[in-house]
Amino acid sequence: MGRGSSDDKGQIAIHWQAIAAWLRTTGELPLNLKVIAEGEEEIGSPNFEAFVRANRDRLASDYAVISDTSMVAKGFPAITYALRGLIYFELRVETASTDLHSGKLGGIAPNPAQALAEILVRLKDAAGHVLVPGFYDGVRPLSDDERRQFARVPFDEAEIKGTYGLRALHGEAGFTPTERNWARPTLDVNGIWGGYQGPGAKTIIPAWAAAKFSCRLVPDQDSKAVTEALRGYIDQVQPNTVRVTLTKLSGHGDAWITPVDHPLIAAGQRALRRVYGQEPALIRDGGSIGAVDVMDRLLEVPCLLVGFVLPDSFAHAPNERLDLDSFYLGRKAALHLWEEIAAIGVR
Amino acid sequence: MGRGSSDDKGQIAIHWQAIAAWLRTTGELPLNLKVIAEGEEEIGSPNFEAFVRANRDRLASDYAVISDTSMVAKGFPAITYALRGLIYFELRVETASTDLHSGKLGGIAPNPAQALAEILVRLKDAAGHVLVPGFYDGVRPLSDDERRQFARVPFDEAEIKGTYGLRALHGEAGFTPTERNWARPTLDVNGIWGGYQGPGAKTIIPAWAAAKFSCRLVPDQDSKAVTEALRGYIDQVQPNTVRVTLTKLSGHGDAWITPVDHPLIAAGQRALRRVYGQEPALIRDGGSIGAVDVMDRLLEVPCLLVGFVLPDSFAHAPNERLDLDSFYLGRKAALHLWEEIAAIGVR
Repeated sequence: MGRGSSDDKGQIAIHWQAIAAWLRTTGELPLNLKVIAEGEEEIGSPNFEAFVRANRDRLASDYAVISDTSMVAKGFPAITYALRGLIYFELRVETASTDLHSGKLGGIAPNPAQALAEILVRLKDAAGHVLVPGFYDGVRPLSDDERRQFARVPFDEAEIKGTYGLRALHGEAGFTPTERNWARPTLDVNGIWGGYQGPGAKTIIPAWAAAKFSCRLVPDQDSKAVTEALRGYIDQVQPNTVRVTLTKLSGHGDAWITPVDHPLIAAGQRALRRVYGQEPALIRDGGSIGAVDVMDRLLEVPCLLVGFVLPDSFAHAPNERLDLDSFYLGRKAALHLWEEIAAIGVR
Repeated sequence: MGRGSSDDKGQIAIHWQAIAAWLRTTGELPLNLKVIAEGEEEIGSPNFEAFVRANRDRLASDYAVISDTSMVAKGFPAITYALRGLIYFELRVETASTDLHSGKLGGIAPNPAQALAEILVRLKDAAGHVLVPGFYDGVRPLSDDERRQFARVPFDEAEIKGTYGLRALHGEAGFTPTERNWARPTLDVNGIWGGYQGPGAKTIIPAWAAAKFSCRLVPDQDSKAVTEALRGYIDQVQPNTVRVTLTKLSGHGDAWITPVDHPLIAAGQRALRRVYGQEPALIRDGGSIGAVDVMDRLLEVPCLLVGFVLPDSFAHAPNERLDLDSFYLGRKAALHLWEEIAAIGVR
């Protein structure tokens, strides 16, 4: 009835010991449980979709539980009810069949790097607002309650700046940084290149320049409609001196969301309340989780995202860790979780 | 009294045989000649400046002749009286101490590639006009006579497009392509790079992005003043979310020009008229020639640029050639040249 998937051995251990505790004390679990330990999340879960497709009937279930997210802080649990989607593109701007001599052709030939810059500033303004008509169509506005929930999660601007060496934060007006990251779509250049990149000077006008860029999407944007809007807009704003190719690369597509008033969320809240003695935060996340996308699309099962690692767990870094207190409390929460989910019954 | 420098064995042979003809027939030259055969032009003349500095007294002279330019067409000679200068920069835009995860920081962190694009479109508008205040200060307007001279040189737009695979030409309004290339300053991105450039997708916000760009300068722009204007303007227009570094790389600096009514030019015109039976074109060139810059700066000697190769000589390419008719006529012109220069006397 539920699944545990984790990028973290500690989170697997939490669920495994909670399950063992049920079996040792009552001889059975309060519900029928199917466990998937997905060990390839860090490399993009390349085999997970094929596995789920091949085992769709065996994996059919009423609810899913995935522990791949964080708590807000020590003793402050969280349920993640939405993730952003992703569409990723390569934009190539070509003006000539070969690099040109800037002495011989400067003032005569168009410059693809300049044209690429002209396109990029047409995609997004200096304040971070995306300029593609239709881009924000379908964006579900944040409710007052969601904004209140997000505001419960501390955001330390000075700490963020210090950690990443940022001079300033940046983004759309009218939203907090947390709101922008969790619930607003973004468009970001991921890479840019063209012409001479070596040491010293080479006086060429490049033949072409390219950029990779991607959009993080939120509910209820339609990734296909956004892709078409982008294509049409770039066709329209590109200088007539260039040839433009827009190639769609990988991406999780649409965003994922479970309604905050879904019984599965309520069950998770009850379980966490019993252990932590305070209201769990209802949060979103700015990224995507491949397994959530696959389970949502292929199994059409509501997912509860609840994790027990702390934000300072140094994920993927030296000294990665699961705080011991969080481990013990997380084990208790996992124990209650199956009981609370069993209580809401089958879909 | 004159010098022959050439990137082309044929042009050296033309001068050598013309000198030999003088010596064989009259036993002497009509003037005192110092010959420099500079064989490193194609690799940027790395030793030429040091050589000239070390031999300044021995090389002192009244006039210089340099054969490193082309004719307009077979039987249609040309004198090049101006070359563009060059200043070359690297512009680095940094926002973070490390590449960031676009899920975790998208909507929060500034994007250096986007900021770089914002700076580039502030430097030059989509029509090719440079927007840096003061950039065009000192640009010597073309006289009607210069424009007439330039118009004598055929410019085949379809051929240029075909040769370089260009969809369209591009540049400032109000000038022909030839005028833009020879007598208008330009600003061109030579290279751009930052973030992820490999195959497929990587969802980062880059820590930094960079561009190389350079300006071709014309008489009488002051390369130092343009450099300062660029620095001040970039300081002013850069987004306040980024750290910008502007590094000056190599460059020939100021443009070079000999007044079209200089007696040395007139001497060249007379010599060419005697051989070709038509008025030589008075042209400029969009590039720079390192040796001209050195002789102009260090020896302060007026230079006459007259060459005998054809535009379709396939310079630097397979089947590079000097047309035989051009060789024979060029030899005659070189022969007359020394006589005509001798006639104008010492400076």
